[in-house]
Amino acid sequence: MSAKRWNVYLSGEIHSDWREQIRLGVEQAGLPVDLTGPITDHAASDECGVAILGPEETRAWTDHKGASVNAIRTRTLIEAADVVVVRFGDKYRQWNAAFDAGYASALGKPIVTLHDESIGHALKEVDAAALAVAERPEQVVQILDYAITGRL
Amino acid sequence: MSAKRWNVYLSGEIHSDWREQIRLGVEQAGLPVDLTGPITDHAASDECGVAILGPEETRAWTDHKGASVNAIRTRTLIEAADVVVVRFGDKYRQWNAAFDAGYASALGKPIVTLHDESIGHALKEVDAAALAVAERPEQVVQILDYAITGRL
Amino acid sequence: MSAKRWNVYLSGEIHSDWREQIRLGVEQAGLPVDLTGPITDHAASDECGVAILGPEETRAWTDHKGASVNAIRTRTLIEAADVVVVRFGDKYRQWNAAFDAGYASALGKPIVTLHDESIGHALKEVDAAALAVAERPEQVVQILDYAITGRL
Amino acid sequence: MSAKRWNVYLSGEIHSDWREQIRLGVEQAGLPVDLTGPITDHAASDECGVAILGPEETRAWTDHKGASVNAIRTRTLIEAADVVVVRFGDKYRQWNAAFDAGYASALGKPIVTLHDESIGHALKEVDAAALAVAERPEQVVQILDYAITGRL
Amino acid sequence: MSAKRWNVYLSGEIHSDWREQIRLGVEQAGLPVDLTGPITDHAASDECGVAILGPEETRAWTDHKGASVNAIRTRTLIEAADVVVVRFGDKYRQWNAAFDAGYASALGKPIVTLHDESIGHALKEVDAAALAVAERPEQVVQILDYAITGRL
Amino acid sequence: MSAKRWNVYLSGEIHSDWREQIRLGVEQAGLPVDLTGPITDHAASDECGVAILGPEETRAWTDHKGASVNAIRTRTLIEAADVVVVRFGDKYRQWNAAFDAGYASALGKPIVTLHDESIGHALKEVDAAALAVAERPEQVVQILDYAITGRL
Amino acid sequence: MSAKRWNVYLSGEIHSDWREQIRLGVEQAGLPVDLTGPITDHAASDECGVAILGPEETRAWTDHKGASVNAIRTRTLIEAADVVVVRFGDKYRQWNAAFDAGYASALGKPIVTLHDESIGHALKEVDAAALAVAERPEQVVQILDYAITGRL
Amino acid sequence: MSAKRWNVYLSGEIHSDWREQIRLGVEQAGLPVDLTGPITDHAASDECGVAILGPEETRAWTDHKGASVNAIRTRTLIEAADVVVVRFGDKYRQWNAAFDAGYASALGKPIVTLHDESIGHALKEVDAAALAVAERPEQVVQILDYAITGRL
Repeated sequence: MSAKRWNVYLSGEIHSDWREQIRLGVEQAGLPVDLTGPITDHAASDECGVAILGPEETRAWTDHKGASVNAIRTRTLIEAADVVVVRFGDKYRQWNAAFDAGYASALGKPIVTLHDESIGHALKEVDAAALAVAERPEQVVQILDYAITGRL
Repeated sequence: MSAKRWNVYLSGEIHSDWREQIRLGVEQAGLPVDLTGPITDHAASDECGVAILGPEETRAWTDHKGASVNAIRTRTLIEAADVVVVRFGDKYRQWNAAFDAGYASALGKPIVTLHDESIGHALKEVDAAALAVAERPEQVVQILDYAITGRL
Repeated sequence: MSAKRWNVYLSGEIHSDWREQIRLGVEQAGLPVDLTGPITDHAASDECGVAILGPEETRAWTDHKGASVNAIRTRTLIEAADVVVVRFGDKYRQWNAAFDAGYASALGKPIVTLHDESIGHALKEVDAAALAVAERPEQVVQILDYAITGRL
Repeated sequence: MSAKRWNVYLSGEIHSDWREQIRLGVEQAGLPVDLTGPITDHAASDECGVAILGPEETRAWTDHKGASVNAIRTRTLIEAADVVVVRFGDKYRQWNAAFDAGYASALGKPIVTLHDESIGHALKEVDAAALAVAERPEQVVQILDYAITGRL
Repeated sequence: MSAKRWNVYLSGEIHSDWREQIRLGVEQAGLPVDLTGPITDHAASDECGVAILGPEETRAWTDHKGASVNAIRTRTLIEAADVVVVRFGDKYRQWNAAFDAGYASALGKPIVTLHDESIGHALKEVDAAALAVAERPEQVVQILDYAITGRL
Repeated sequence: MSAKRWNVYLSGEIHSDWREQIRLGVEQAGLPVDLTGPITDHAASDECGVAILGPEETRAWTDHKGASVNAIRTRTLIEAADVVVVRFGDKYRQWNAAFDAGYASALGKPIVTLHDESIGHALKEVDAAALAVAERPEQVVQILDYAITGRL
Repeated sequence: MSAKRWNVYLSGEIHSDWREQIRLGVEQAGLPVDLTGPITDHAASDECGVAILGPEETRAWTDHKGASVNAIRTRTLIEAADVVVVRFGDKYRQWNAAFDAGYASALGKPIVTLHDESIGHALKEVDAAALAVAERPEQVVQILDYAITGRL
Repeated sequence: MSAKRWNVYLSGEIHSDWREQIRLGVEQAGLPVDLTGPITDHAASDECGVAILGPEETRAWTDHKGASVNAIRTRTLIEAADVVVVRFGDKYRQWNAAFDAGYASALGKPIVTLHDESIGHALKEVDAAALAVAERPEQVVQILDYAITGRL
């Protein structure tokens, strides 16, 4: 009945096109959804701190500066989100994705996780904090479609 | 004096047309009100979890998945609401309606209950947390009209 | 620099035209301010509960119903306010005005009180919780003008 | 490692001895648990308002006074609880139990529900907000024992 | 079942012995209650600011300093309270009592008001925010006794 | 992906043109940023209290009135901000800037500090609460550009 | 000066004796610290849900039940903690540790991470949210010792 | 009437014996006060980060590590405080003191500032957020004595 736009933050994996699939799905369904997420350019994300604020001699401080600058974006957008989707791929440790899930959980945000069943056991604490556990991006679109319009 | 739109969540009974009556009343009164509420298609509401996320062998997990997916919608919209109206019919246990009332109460939302006087005793704790106890949908419209415009 | 509109709630006395004076002042100064406040029709405010929800045999329950219905409006608008102005006249006990001031204070809202110096001693706890103590409506307009535009 | 005492609120059904069973179980297990709950004397709970604050002519106001006085206890103790257990029996509507569950959920309290599987479908929204769904009081004791000591 | 002590703040009138009556009643009933409240020595309360922090030439700043110093106590103790009792006598404006009620209400504290029925209409907004409206101190003791022990 | 506008509060030094540099940089980069900040007219900021609310005989109360009126603006805008930039120049004590940083930090706002390296040691507690420590206004623009668009 | 006891939650890796090392260090230093943490018996932690609440046919629901029961403990203890230490080992994905870090961060808890420098890059977002990044358990003890007593 | 102990955090200047004076005064008055504060050993406070977590090549990162470790203590103790006293001496910039004041203010803690009148103008924003502005340590003791016992 209302014209509310839904703000959905897409956290996690940056090595596959799942965000694009969700974007296309949301668009095709004509959903009133604004998608946000982290900067997904890996190199930029790693180097933003030193690129803007000056070089560091160690990887540790380079990382600290970069992660802090990225946090300006991620914290702001997660706090503004209605729903947080967290994607885990089958590679890398992706601790930032799990961190985002914990952060969103403590803020009381509805969480949807998105990952292969094969890594479900390792993700059990994260999944237990989620309202839906999806395996494919189109399921995320269907969840948003149902939550917003009631369509199945 | 201001142009504020009021966001009113309509929780509870899905077997009568009370939401439609309120919608019509609000429209006829020309009130700046956005009405929201749960998905009211009973079958969709029951099956949404398994329809999207895959089948379950037991009713219990089917329900768990469905109720969790519905919570993505209901929590988001209740938290966005200025006022929460909770309707109890004379059939079914409607524990979700009472749950929503408790949830809204802890968030400090103004609550209006809507039910026959005949079930008032069973609802006394819920009514005691409400700012108004109405029996008919038009009273809800009148409350919104008065609260927003001062008209009686 | 920004185009923010300021939401200002005008609480308290309903027997003089101070709200109208502030409204005119804000308009003449062209300030981006939305003014809100309680229903100021005394009779409607007293009778709204029973008029909508049915008669009561005692004044106490008539008052309880009415005050509760009014609270739907006042709580919602105070929580939405950026600034709360609380006016005390020289008549009546106006406990609702002091209640609103305490409510706004606990929510961390900036408070401006508006009253004659002659009742300042009785209002010392309320004034001590305020960021400004004004005596005349035009001072409230000047405060808003300065806070928003920097003009003196 | 720590000597923390756990504060567990037992909400809901007052017509069976489930609270006593949990109390005994907790005692036998030697758990550092303080159990709290509502007043379980049905007549006292219904009449406390008018007994203390004076009689009312209608059931509705008798109920309002009573439920409000009971809320002084229940709100205070739920907010002080680490864990909230909510019991649903097979009789009565028990809307206050579901209300408490919603209230506890919005406060972010861990919830354990306790009820027969036969009413699980009707309770699906409440169960979906719980971290455990138990059928027998001894399971609640086992959950507390495990959560506090790690014993299985 | 638990050994919780209840923290009850007694706000308002300082010209009758109602606090002493409640203290005696609580003691006789053996309730686990800690009573707190404002400084009730009127002269000290008015002069504490200038007595400690230096004299002022105007009543207004004397009041400001005094009310601010008193707020160190009252805010701290209200925020620590489980229940707030607010007493209104038949004399003076007692805006600080109404302010405390509003402050406690926004913090979600259970409120009990205590006043003659004769001033009930003027207090309707405050009473509507309370969970009990008492006329005599022994009723407050009875409410605490019931809320804590279930005795009627 | 979304059209979110970012609200950035610029706190601190008022004796150089750093706000104007950031404003120009944001404009040239075409960023969806609304910049806010305190009143930067030093004389107006000092005198606003007495100019509007009447003269005081002492500097202390003149300052108290003025700082309180300014707080109406600064608190409101800091609470509305997504990001708070705090600039420290090499002159004056600028305790208000450090106060704003502490205030923003407790609210969980992302903070960027802006100051010469030469005063970094004295600012170490403030910098440790920041997500970025910049030395030049264009770095602040670059941070906003990266955080919003991902451009480096 | 005060006798405050510090509540420190030890999250993460359960395959080495780091908790025991911290416990011994805290004991030897005589610090007023209560250490808490998750259940570290891996098998019990995996099976607690089905052991208490009944078997499941799939690993996914076994995990869901278990992780939810564990969350009763972990959420309660993290919210009660003054400081949260999060340990990452060099094996396993340990997403629950990163989840806990995010959860603690959103609650505003001071975080100390504990891990080898070799995994620092993968943990950069988690480390950036921490107030200290340690490599060895004795450093955690030294941090607690310094934070509590000022000893270096 | 109650036996509450008051938790008072003493922030700011570490180059005079004001904390000791307050400690002695509180002791002589027999007040139920627990005093807390930052580590006041300047060298330890500066070096704690690198002493525990390893050396840095730059002053900036040495400071960052140290200030972050100190924040584990200061944040924890400020959040646990009932009242925050902030002392400004006549030397150094003491930005950390002003930061603490802002932090405490956003948390709603009652603040007492302590400084010479001569620096009052520079501190006007900080003082305006305080409930008392004292010049001498014994005034702080008197404020605590009055707030706790009512003695003048």
